[in-house]
Amino acid sequence: MNLEDHIRDVEDFPSEGILFKDITPLLNNPAAVKTALNELMVFLDGKKIDKVVGMESRGFFFAPMLALELTAGFVPVRKAGKLPGKTIKQGYGLEYGQDILEMHTDAVREGDSVLVHDDVLATGGTAEAACKLIEQLGGTIVQCNFLIELDFLKGRYKLKSYDVQSVLHY
Amino acid sequence: MNLEDHIRDVEDFPSEGILFKDITPLLNNPAAVKTALNELMVFLDGKKIDKVVGMESRGFFFAPMLALELTAGFVPVRKAGKLPGKTIKQGYGLEYGQDILEMHTDAVREGDSVLVHDDVLATGGTAEAACKLIEQLGGTIVQCNFLIELDFLKGRYKLKSYDVQSVLHY
Repeated sequence: MNLEDHIRDVEDFPSEGILFKDITPLLNNPAAVKTALNELMVFLDGKKIDKVVGMESRGFFFAPMLALELTAGFVPVRKAGKLPGKTIKQGYGLEYGQDILEMHTDAVREGDSVLVHDDVLATGGTAEAACKLIEQLGGTIVQCNFLIELDFLKGRYKLKSYDVQSVLHY
Repeated sequence: MNLEDHIRDVEDFPSEGILFKDITPLLNNPAAVKTALNELMVFLDGKKIDKVVGMESRGFFFAPMLALELTAGFVPVRKAGKLPGKTIKQGYGLEYGQDILEMHTDAVREGDSVLVHDDVLATGGTAEAACKLIEQLGGTIVQCNFLIELDFLKGRYKLKSYDVQSVLHY
């Protein structure tokens, strides 16, 4: 199966001049989901993972499935004000201005081995902020993995101290 | 395993006077996730499902796992402006004012058997809007299932033409 056949290009989304990689056709195809999940699992090469951290919202599609496969806990990282419990916060740069990500303080424990997952690695700002939150709570980042990496945005340079793996590259 | 032990009560979230049922402790515990997933699967009693529709954002946690178990496609329902492709829209009443939900027009096909999933059934407005979108595309609702049902909000009356199942009741 060629997973690229299940990624749809959408022009001018979310704003003019952007070619958006839409993963919803992949999600709509159970064989493609299974293949993508297996490829993400292969990246981990049997490494022990205690927590899988997924980023709001599209990171929520695969991160819980990865956690289930790994018999690990799933931890959502969300935008400001969405998590009900006590949180730690981390700002991250967007093209214009800043945004805030939050994680529950009790979600990751000292010494936890953590996998960070999101659907797309673009500039790396979101993943970098998630890694900072995890390390602040004493977790160790084992890997950051993605369905899609937009190579030309060089997001992996922001994550250069981590093992970064992506199923598809554009 | 008692799943209620993994649901945390948070007072005054998202606004004063609301007692919020936080499912993140459950998500953080792989045995609890497996138990909840199995209970949701039991509700389906082997029925054939072509598509599992999950609602943004907390419906995204379990809906893709259910789709994987059922060898069905996963379809996200999102708030206005979040889906990149061609969509159909449905308004739904909130306590104050209205909001819009969207689904890709090619996500559900005529004759598809569809499971609707969300984490919590409260007033039922979101699930009802999702059902309308699915039926507009020619899909048949086989079941609406939820991790938690807030019985006192009587959401199941809005969904009375459907099979409604919930793992936990409050």
